Amino acid sequence: MDYAKEALRYHAEWNGKLETVPKMPIQNRDDLSIAYTPGVAAPCLEIQKDPKLSYTYTGRGHTIAVISDGSAILGLGNIGPEAGMPVMEGKCVLFKALSGLDAIPLCLNTQDTDELVHIISSLEPSFGGINLEDIAAPRCFEVEKRLQEKMQIPVFHDDQHGTAIVVSSAIVNALRLVKKENPNIVINGAGSAGCAIARLLLDLELGNVILVDKQGILEKNMELTSGQRALIDRLNIHHRTGTLSDALKNADVFIGVSAGHIVSKEMIQSMNEKAIVFAMANPIPEIGPEDAKEAGAYVVGTGRSDHPNQINNLLAFPGIFKGALDAQATKINDEMKKAAVFAIASLISEEELSPDNIIVSALDPRVVPAVSKAVQQAAKDSGVIRKWDR
Amino acid sequence: MDYAKEALRYHAEWNGKLETVPKMPIQNRDDLSIAYTPGVAAPCLEIQKDPKLSYTYTGRGHTIAVISDGSAILGLGNIGPEAGMPVMEGKCVLFKALSGLDAIPLCLNTQDTDELVHIISSLEPSFGGINLEDIAAPRCFEVEKRLQEKMQIPVFHDDQHGTAIVVSSAIVNALRLVKKENPNIVINGAGSAGCAIARLLLDLELGNVILVDKQGILEKNMELTSGQRALIDRLNIHHRTGTLSDALKNADVFIGVSAGHIVSKEMIQSMNEKAIVFAMANPIPEIGPEDAKEAGAYVVGTGRSDHPNQINNLLAFPGIFKGALDAQATKINDEMKKAAVFAIASLISEEELSPDNIIVSALDPRVVPAVSKAVQQAAKDSGVIRKWDR
Repeated sequence: MDYAKEALRYHAEWNGKLETVPKMPIQNRDDLSIAYTPGVAAPCLEIQKDPKLSYTYTGRGHTIAVISDGSAILGLGNIGPEAGMPVMEGKCVLFKALSGLDAIPLCLNTQDTDELVHIISSLEPSFGGINLEDIAAPRCFEVEKRLQEKMQIPVFHDDQHGTAIVVSSAIVNALRLVKKENPNIVINGAGSAGCAIARLLLDLELGNVILVDKQGILEKNMELTSGQRALIDRLNIHHRTGTLSDALKNADVFIGVSAGHIVSKEMIQSMNEKAIVFAMANPIPEIGPEDAKEAGAYVVGTGRSDHPNQINNLLAFPGIFKGALDAQATKINDEMKKAAVFAIASLISEEELSPDNIIVSALDPRVVPAVSKAVQQAAKDSGVIRKWDR
Repeated sequence: MDYAKEALRYHAEWNGKLETVPKMPIQNRDDLSIAYTPGVAAPCLEIQKDPKLSYTYTGRGHTIAVISDGSAILGLGNIGPEAGMPVMEGKCVLFKALSGLDAIPLCLNTQDTDELVHIISSLEPSFGGINLEDIAAPRCFEVEKRLQEKMQIPVFHDDQHGTAIVVSSAIVNALRLVKKENPNIVINGAGSAGCAIARLLLDLELGNVILVDKQGILEKNMELTSGQRALIDRLNIHHRTGTLSDALKNADVFIGVSAGHIVSKEMIQSMNEKAIVFAMANPIPEIGPEDAKEAGAYVVGTGRSDHPNQINNLLAFPGIFKGALDAQATKINDEMKKAAVFAIASLISEEELSPDNIIVSALDPRVVPAVSKAVQQAAKDSGVIRKWDR
């Protein structure tokens, strides 16, 4: 199927992918008097008396804002807020289809950090959570950090943490399959996603991590972003130097969150036996999955839904937000992220594990219940449930 | 029916009134590849090349933001953004049910004019129009004016203009019924709605208008708001002075957009024969409709859906926004407002006109098509269609 052509046809036919639908019938004067004036004054006044009732009488307890500034849309770059909207609408469609959560797509026409923080935090009364999406690094780090400090609802930059969680789940299972301990893991792409993956893999003690970007294997004496600087002491414990090609020699795992066509068959051949290759650049992977297999990779995954082992954020964010909102958590902390990693990984049993089946399908109906339950429990255990003392 | 009780029951049962629903099925990998990655890149890139395609490939051409700062919710006052959400959700439900437009409820946690202008204008790429709602005067005037200057999509403060349009439609028909020319019209409440009604009635040359607030009949030498000041030379051409009670002596029309229970039967009795009384304070009218009738009023209307002659904004805003969005108008100008007034009024024929039937029901299926068609034509005729030269 020509997805681009089909996508254009569908998007034009429906003028977008989302609609807002009333849950109450509006057919007569009584309906109006309940949904609107005069009846609606009653829930308003109840919420004024007790703000936590906004989770009872309005939709915020099941509604997420999916927000971007259009600066890093998919792998397409800074294409602007208008052009970013199809992705945000798509994300909202997935939220609803997978978790039942309602989601509102918002693209903002500013790319200034202070303005983004100010605008997004002002939306708090309308939502139960904020999914930041496709915001360029390093701005995304500061925007997320400052919003988390300022807001009483969860703020989650999915490109960082969603990716990190799903990649970690896939790594957990791939390592179960190949039975390796302390593997050498090379991550290419040291932006928001790459740094978040590195951090979570290290926190989970899954292996030695080398982070590579255009200047090569990251080292202490290079010019580093704040996100890279925060990690550098934990990376590259064998003090390797050089290019991506150098890094991949004797590596056990390749994780690509960079750009299409930058890994060659020769580079894959230089990896250790039973190599694990996750080429997740979108829409074009770092190396085609067929080429990676031909070059000897044992486990191959991509970010695409048209190949096996789709390592896609949509395994994580619907269940994570569902769990966080159901718990009325004020944030999505590390404990909740780790809970999600193991909840996703554990959906594939030992018997089911195979090179083409290391991660469960995003459309498997068990995913969201398992993830949301684990995340909700972790929120409770780690004490981030909202307290409603005024 | 006890609307307050029913409203609490409904709102709690559903946790709000609105959901976001995908227009495309998400059941298999192909669906994902079309709605999301990799297919979604195609509409993104098309919009990047040609921004007007955001009206083809995303929902903005049929999506409104309903935005408040929580400062003047219904007649309840400054109850805050959380407590204002049930009203915004209700408005969104009505948008969809009546016009088919999708609408997103947003309550912002700031009441600062500069901040509101900044935040709301940043949302432009996501929406086809902005319905400002329940923002206190005089802030609402400046917020609306500055947004209209700044944004390329229609911005419409419904509490001002929607009310003014529907009241004007009702006045047009009530005057047809009582066959009066150049009537004395008393408006009580000189805030945003009162001033907008006065201005539109004067623009339409429907009568002599006296504006009254807590300090009495407004006069030039009083302390006036900017909205009142802009009108004062056109008001009260017979130079009347005194209280609301004085103003109503020999008045032909009373329009109340103020507070409950402030007009007595005696005051109605002092009006001219065949008095027209629109007591629209919400949820409690200035005088109960039964009392007004008993005191001799010939035509009585309220803002409530549980009485005849409901003079409610919902006759106007769905069709106005539908017409404006279908035209891709950059604003909702005076010509479009006037077109809406006569489109609504003309839905009641001479034969149908009666004291209890001066305005069509908001649920009459002819309303939105008639209003949107007239508004769309007026937008074209007055030249406010968006031009897409970059």
